[in-house]
This record gives sequence, structure tokens and C-alpha cells, in this order.
Amino acid sequence: MIGKPVPQPSQTAAFVPGKIIPIDLMANAGHRSYDIVVGDSILSEAGTLISLRLGVRRCLIITDNNVGPLYRQRLEAVLAAAGHTLIPALEVSAGEGSKDFTTLQVVLDHMLKNGIDRQSLVIALGGGVVGDLAGFAASLVMRGIDVVQIPTSLLAQVDSSVGGKTGINTVHGKNVVGTFYQPRLVLADVTVLDSLPKREMLAGYAEVVKYGLIKDADFFHWCQSDGDKLLRGDRQAQIYAVGYCCSQKAKIVAADEREKGERALLNLGHTFGHALEAIIGYNQLILHGEAVAIGAVMAFKLSAQLGFCSHAEAYEVRDHFATMGLPVAPPSTFDYDVDKLMDLMAQDKKAQNKKLTLILARRIGDAFVSHDVKTDAVRDLWLELLR
Amino acid sequence: MIGKPVPQPSQTAAFVPGKIIPIDLMANAGHRSYDIVVGDSILSEAGTLISLRLGVRRCLIITDNNVGPLYRQRLEAVLAAAGHTLIPALEVSAGEGSKDFTTLQVVLDHMLKNGIDRQSLVIALGGGVVGDLAGFAASLVMRGIDVVQIPTSLLAQVDSSVGGKTGINTVHGKNVVGTFYQPRLVLADVTVLDSLPKREMLAGYAEVVKYGLIKDADFFHWCQSDGDKLLRGDRQAQIYAVGYCCSQKAKIVAADEREKGERALLNLGHTFGHALEAIIGYNQLILHGEAVAIGAVMAFKLSAQLGFCSHAEAYEVRDHFATMGLPVAPPSTFDYDVDKLMDLMAQDKKAQNKKLTLILARRIGDAFVSHDVKTDAVRDLWLELLR
Repeated sequence: MIGKPVPQPSQTAAFVPGKIIPIDLMANAGHRSYDIVVGDSILSEAGTLISLRLGVRRCLIITDNNVGPLYRQRLEAVLAAAGHTLIPALEVSAGEGSKDFTTLQVVLDHMLKNGIDRQSLVIALGGGVVGDLAGFAASLVMRGIDVVQIPTSLLAQVDSSVGGKTGINTVHGKNVVGTFYQPRLVLADVTVLDSLPKREMLAGYAEVVKYGLIKDADFFHWCQSDGDKLLRGDRQAQIYAVGYCCSQKAKIVAADEREKGERALLNLGHTFGHALEAIIGYNQLILHGEAVAIGAVMAFKLSAQLGFCSHAEAYEVRDHFATMGLPVAPPSTFDYDVDKLMDLMAQDKKAQNKKLTLILARRIGDAFVSHDVKTDAVRDLWLELLR
Repeated sequence: MIGKPVPQPSQTAAFVPGKIIPIDLMANAGHRSYDIVVGDSILSEAGTLISLRLGVRRCLIITDNNVGPLYRQRLEAVLAAAGHTLIPALEVSAGEGSKDFTTLQVVLDHMLKNGIDRQSLVIALGGGVVGDLAGFAASLVMRGIDVVQIPTSLLAQVDSSVGGKTGINTVHGKNVVGTFYQPRLVLADVTVLDSLPKREMLAGYAEVVKYGLIKDADFFHWCQSDGDKLLRGDRQAQIYAVGYCCSQKAKIVAADEREKGERALLNLGHTFGHALEAIIGYNQLILHGEAVAIGAVMAFKLSAQLGFCSHAEAYEVRDHFATMGLPVAPPSTFDYDVDKLMDLMAQDKKAQNKKLTLILARRIGDAFVSHDVKTDAVRDLWLELLR
């Protein structure tokens, strides 16, 4: 999923730390807090950024066979230069298929047979799949060792690398097995986004827009006016958007780490989206971010149908995604079973006692959790979209 | 491993709550605290004890094929009588072999296909294996749902059910994959100990003595004078000992949930013991508690050899275990490879950067963590015991 590499900034360039966002979980989870560092030469400084905060460590890089060939050697070099020692890196197969029990066991076995201990450090170098899988394995080995996230996709930089959700998929649904396990540091280098295929970049952009949709109409308007700059590689726009999204997520996670309340808003579009991904089978027909875009459009449409928000705003959301090139309806090349889609939605983690819990919206920038959405309304919406 | 059932106290008997021990993890882990209820009619009151603290729930009992036939139906009846609903119970095979990836997947699959959700409650009814496995699965499904421990072995009542250590074994060692995940309630009914085979009871007793060895010489002396009462079924002695051990463990866990310091003392004898269990292969040749007894004897002998404690005290420890009928040296019917034992000890979770970390003692009731035990001294001790 990663295209050919593009020239990277010189490793000898002066370090510009970019935006440092502290995330403080002291309030509800003891003395745990960590920094999210966002900038345009972060990868080159990763060794120092880690040793300054976490000391000199024995490091295990976990990556995939798309990202590994692009950035692993460079990361190993900067880690070694900062005094860290290296456990042989592990490359898993790129793609959602690696978020399974089999690959989890491969990762844990690699850790254990290389003598990982509680003082070792796992570094997740990759997109959301690598971050979720490596974070999950790190949370389990020796009952939990430190992990640093170095997200290389836009989706991972703005969403999955922050907040400590880890997990794998099963036949029963996406991320239905996992842990809440915070990383010790997140390093987001926007320059690596240059190597992302356009489709991946767009898919991640859906999660960027989501932050505006749930809590901040101004940011949605920024997306409407400046979102294309981000997608075209404008560094300032990228650092601004990644930094903004991470700040928002840090605030929400600090207030509600285990998703008892507000954190659920981040799932806007996800219950629809997860059902779509599951029924299609986690393949290239639909990427996670694309499913989220479709799901967010559906959530606003449903909100309008249920009288919570205006149809005009629901169209505005749909139009922005469509204008940017994201899908706004399920791929028509798949043969859907609406009963199965409904079952998958009911199984989603947000389900409470078999009622459908969904994130709906009163307007753009004002989402809320509804625990009693009537299944008929949801079924009708699927039927309308899929006919 | 469970013998034939003995008469149980009448379910209509007035409820005697026995000893209630609060465990408060607020200090280092947010607003998490739970009660450990110890007494002699707890199982009959489990439904009410749960509903009073955790509300009325959809409950999934996980047990094994030794304990299930004895207590599952009775537990289901008292849960139903208190208004809880039941997900079909799951019985795994009794024995350490169930603490593996395969059985973990079976448990998770059972949970998911029965539509477990974040409001459901897992009830671990069994010994240490069931508690560790069910606790682990509960910590992973939907990224963690509530779990109540109902320990049915002495070992589980005094040790493994309290404190939130969960996990499974791999070829690389015991409990090397797991989580720290606290139960919401622990219900210890000492009457169920009547159905424990004598060998299991004795194995659990090794963990009882451990609390005296690490922090409290007076309790060790109580074991010397009254320990046999506990083993012979004296209710008062059982409630006293189980309550004492749970109180001690609650204090230690509240101060050091993630074993950064003092909690490691609870591992007295465990690094030796884990190596023995691993090399023998987790079978009936040695039970966990027996391995801990042997390990504790070795830890005191090593402490004496290294000049930390007197040989007289090391003999006193050995003599008490031997007097009660516990093994004090590795079973002679197995062909040991000392290099492999040393490797297994180095792999143990307590290992730090390849040095041997062991719990040693200055005297009975005064154990400490040593991070730099010379491997030669440990190897010599194995050779001495195994020749």
C-alpha cells in the first residue's frame, strides 16, 4: 500500500521539533502521560526523542513489508546512533489481514524467542494495522512492556496511534479482541505521508474530517477550504491538521480513556463502517477510512431522517467527502445481505444489551451518542443505499 | 483434580458474610477498587453479592470439567434467583494445559458468538487456571469487560484470584503472555475447599506459607502451629488464613499493581518454580504450589549460601514444608538439563537485561528483591539438588 519512496529531508538538517502535544492520563489512570510529537523531520530524530524521554533501550521494531523497506533501516540507524540496541526487527504482511490471532502469535513468539524483557521497548513503525497489532502484542508480552508509535499513514497519525486502543479482528467483527494500552510516545513525521498512495491518503483524510464533524464546525470549514492542501503535500497544512486532530484526541482520551462516555463520539461512522468492512471481508474493495467516510455520511443522513439535524447539513457532509474523492455509498460491486449487516452492527462493541448504539449529530460539529436507535430506521437506510 | 462433592451448608442458612476485604487501587490506577469476600456460605449468596455491588447482569460462567459438575448448577441457580440472566456456561478442560492460545481462542469465540457485550459479566468459577484464563479473556473481549473471580482452590483463594494478574503459558515460559486486569469482586467460599484433593490443598498451602516467609514471621509461626488445622478442614482456621493472605495481597497490590517494586516479593520461589514446571511440561508430576514450595526452599538455601540469612532459618523453612507433606526438592523421576533450567530462569518475566532477578531473604518474614544474583551460584544450587 506504500508507493515508491520520495526524497527525504536531510538527516543532518537542524531538528525542528514541530508540535509537541502532551497527553495526560493522570486524572483517571495514575501517573501515565505521554507526548505526541508532530513535525517534518521527526523520523530522523527518533533515537534522541526516545532516549530523552524513555532512556536508552533495547528496541524491537515491528513494521510491515510495505513500510519496512522504506523506513526501517533509517530508523535503525538513528536508534543505534542514539545508543539504543536493536532486537532483530519483524516485518508482518501489510494489510488488515495481519490483525488476526495467527499474526499476533507470530509477533509474541518473535518477542519471546529474542529474549524481550520488561525493560525492552517495542516500536510500531507503520499504519493502523501495525500500530494496533504491535500495540496489542506489547500490551500482552510479560503483561505489558513499553511501546512507541511511529505512525506512517495519515489515518494512523490522526487517529489510531493516539489513545491506546489496540486489537485484532475475528470472524465476529473488527477489533473485538484487544486492550486499552497507552503508548509511551507517539512520533508523527508528516514527510512520510509523501510515500502514501493517494487512496490511502484520502482514506486517512476521512478521519481528519471526522474531528470537525463531531466537535468543531470551524475545523470542518477549514477542511472545506484547505483540506486539499493537506492532500497535496503542503507541510504546514499537514502539521496543522495532524497536530489539531492529535490535540483533540488527546483531550477526549484524557477525559474518557475507556470510552464510558465522550470518547465514543470518535466512533462517528464506525459502526456502519465496521459492518461494511466485515461483510466485504477486510480487503482492498474498501479501506477503513473509506468505510468511515461512508459511515459518517450514513450517520448524518440517519440523523436528518430522525429529525436531529437538517438535511442540508447531511448533504454538506456528503458533498465534502465526494468533492475530495472519497466514496459516499457502499461499493456497488458487492452483493450485500442486509440482515447480515444488521447483525454485524448489533455485534459491534458499541452495542448495549442488543439495542443499537450509534453516534448521531444535531449539526456539523455537534455529535452525540444515542443508545436507542431503532433498528428499522437503520435497516431502511441500508436498503435505500444498497438498492 | 477435584474429588467427590461433600455435603454443602444449606442454602437457606442465614448469610454470614465472613470477612470482607476492600482492595483499593485508587492511588495508582484511577477509581478502581473491589471487595474480596471470604466466608463459609459465599457461593450460596453469590447472586446477591454480585447484584448489590455490580447490578443485575448478563453473566457468563467459565469453569472447567472438574469444578463445573460440582458447583456450576448451584451457581446458576443463585444467579438466576438474584435476577441475573445467563449466557450458556463454558467448561474448559481442567489443568494447566488449558492456559494456552488455543483455549483462549475457544473462550473468546464462545463469548463473541453468544453476543457478549461491554455490560456483560464474566464469572471465573475454578482454580488458578480458570481464573487466569477467564480473567485474560475478559480483559481482551471488547477491550475488557467486568470479571468476578470465584476461586475454588486454596491456591486461587489465597493468591491467584486477587490482584489482577491474568495470562497463559507458551513454549517460552509460564504466564509470559497476559494482562494486569483487576476483577470487580472476589468471592472466596472456604467450604468448597472440602472437595479439593489433599494434594491440591497442600499445593495451595505452599502459597499460604509464602506470605509468612516474605513479610511476617508471626504468620509463619501460625502456620507451624495451626497450619494443619487449615488443611484438615477447620473453618475458622481456613477463613483466618484465606482472609489474612488476601489482606496481605490487597495491600501489596494496591501499593504496586504493576510489579515495579514490592509486588515482586510475592514471586518468592516462583522463578525456580516456573523453570521446574516448564522443563517438566506443566503436568501432574509437579503442581504449581509444589513447585513454589521447592522454589521457596531453594530461595532460602541460596540466601543462606550467599550469606543473607542463616542456614538454621533455611532449614526451618524446609522442615515446615516437609513436615506438612510438601516436596522440598525437584521430583527425582525426571531427567533434568541444568542449562535448560538456567535458560528458563533467565527468560522468566522477572529477568532484567539478562541478569538473574530473584527474591531472596534476610530471615523468615524479611524477603527482598535482588537484581544481580550470580548465575553460577544458582547453577551450583541446581546441581547440588539434582545430583
